[in-house]
Amino acid sequence: MNLQESRKKIDSIDEQIVTLLNRRAAEAKQIGRVKAAAGLPFVDDQRETEIYRRITAENYGQIENDALVRIFEQIVRESRRIQFEISSEIKHDVEVAK
Amino acid sequence: MNLQESRKKIDSIDEQIVTLLNRRAAEAKQIGRVKAAAGLPFVDDQRETEIYRRITAENYGQIENDALVRIFEQIVRESRRIQFEISSEIKHDVEVAK
Repeated sequence: MNLQESRKKIDSIDEQIVTLLNRRAAEAKQIGRVKAAAGLPFVDDQRETEIYRRITAENYGQIENDALVRIFEQIVRESRRIQFEISSEIKHDVEVAK
Repeated sequence: MNLQESRKKIDSIDEQIVTLLNRRAAEAKQIGRVKAAAGLPFVDDQRETEIYRRITAENYGQIENDALVRIFEQIVRESRRIQFEISSEIKHDVEVAK
């Protein structure tokens, strides 16, 4: 196995991660809209704890749990930002429509 | 579409990301071994720039490029750590074998 082959595999893995992060962001927008409509808070510590519990349970150990959690903390942070932005847009639209 | 459905979809997406991050870590270990054997440096700015160029080209815009890059910066950071650890183990084994 050489460097070039491993890098090609990583490029293919990254492409799949990009697709999944786009799908995840679309769902986060959906959640943002539902939360904004229902007046629910965007930060949900219980849900975030559940995400970290779930991913470490699913981890099969090529990557350490701590490293996996650090990556997902960034994913969750961006997800929260997406929800916040979508709710600001909705609130803005409501204000303009008044 | 309700919150529960969106969360189920996110859980399924996260499970797939966990699998991909495990595969990526396995490749990073492979690269770490090759680099250690060849005496190559672990930090490769050109390769990292290429990764960010590639993922933003593949992005289809549900998530912003900046957010995508921030997530991949964390993935690359963990990947570097994995390569460093594997090379330390190899060096240690070589020392012990002397």
